Amino acid sequence: MLSTTERTRLGRAKHKARTARTDLYDLLDAGSVCHLGVVVNGAPMVVPTGYGRIGDTLYLHGSTGARSLRAGGEVCVTVTLVDGLVLARSAFNHSLNHRSAMVYGVPRVVGDEEESLAALRALTEQFAPGRWDAVRPPTAKELAATRVLALSLEEASVKVRTGPPVDDEDDLGLPVWAGVVPVRQVFGAPEPDPGLAPGTGVPEHVAALSGALAPSGGTAGAR
Amino acid sequence: MLSTTERTRLGRAKHKARTARTDLYDLLDAGSVCHLGVVVNGAPMVVPTGYGRIGDTLYLHGSTGARSLRAGGEVCVTVTLVDGLVLARSAFNHSLNHRSAMVYGVPRVVGDEEESLAALRALTEQFAPGRWDAVRPPTAKELAATRVLALSLEEASVKVRTGPPVDDEDDLGLPVWAGVVPVRQVFGAPEPDPGLAPGTGVPEHVAALSGALAPSGGTAGAR
Repeated sequence: MLSTTERTRLGRAKHKARTARTDLYDLLDAGSVCHLGVVVNGAPMVVPTGYGRIGDTLYLHGSTGARSLRAGGEVCVTVTLVDGLVLARSAFNHSLNHRSAMVYGVPRVVGDEEESLAALRALTEQFAPGRWDAVRPPTAKELAATRVLALSLEEASVKVRTGPPVDDEDDLGLPVWAGVVPVRQVFGAPEPDPGLAPGTGVPEHVAALSGALAPSGGTAGAR
Repeated sequence: MLSTTERTRLGRAKHKARTARTDLYDLLDAGSVCHLGVVVNGAPMVVPTGYGRIGDTLYLHGSTGARSLRAGGEVCVTVTLVDGLVLARSAFNHSLNHRSAMVYGVPRVVGDEEESLAALRALTEQFAPGRWDAVRPPTAKELAATRVLALSLEEASVKVRTGPPVDDEDDLGLPVWAGVVPVRQVFGAPEPDPGLAPGTGVPEHVAALSGALAPSGGTAGAR
């Protein structure tokens, strides 16, 4: 079960809340970018960044010079997946089908090299599964230039909206088209680096992203 | 030109900065969801929400009961568009092609009914161009239940990363596939509300989103 602190309990739209830990994990595993909120000089700062998950811990990373990672104190990490535009008969009842997670806490700066490497592996794999084993791992110098933060998934909430619009009874007879326009994130065909040695084939873990060379032979696959 | 306050001046990766106002407008106009950061009891809170732009003002809205809109004080609104996974030869040099905007300021609560309606129109049009004129406009009761915030675009920064990976000289000879996997957000075919009167056709402004019925007759169109 997820926590129910004052800030993770949905104030409104309680029916959209999901309270199982697996809902949180599934959502985090399906995303690739989070928005990290910190407080700098009393004001909020929200930056997009990658993340990775290992068990009950969310990992973030960046340059040791990044303002967002040096802020210290409480953070809020939000992951949002947009699934569809909900077009209602009234302007008021328009909505967005989406899944979002908010995680609160004070992150811990990872100092241990083994944990740092495990975190960077998770971050890379979140981005493109199978990538870590295919690339040159970080050097000691690169590790020293990287700040890794660990955030417990203890205090978190998940909100999910699915399905058709919910219109007012009085609006149902209006001659207005209503429904959902699905939104998906898709990968296109891989674009090789101009400096790539000729004949270097697209590896399976990259082809699997776009589905371009996937066994099913489909078009760009939704992630 | 965009502002160059301490918090909008990029600390690192200065070459990714864009400083023209039109870059900011183009990016905001291309997005549909922002992440609103506020400070609640000294801690950050980041919530996904829609937005609309009129000239130099960004509008947000929500229930009058929404904690994020009642927080008061400074906010940071971030809009992020993901364009591609940048797969380098080393784990360290992986990146994300993206465009992101951060807007800082203290929003003003809109009290004027005319401005509220204009803001809600902009919010709806951002979501699905042409939608506002097709639907029932807000009633006085709905307006009273809606909080509209206006945020000046005065203090903002724009960051853009494009192109192939930038690998270390020493890594160029590694037998690792490197390149970019494009990421796009696409709309699927409209799904009519189950309660829709039979024979209600998909209007042009909805069909235009997915391209399903667009003149070009293409597949799901990238937005």
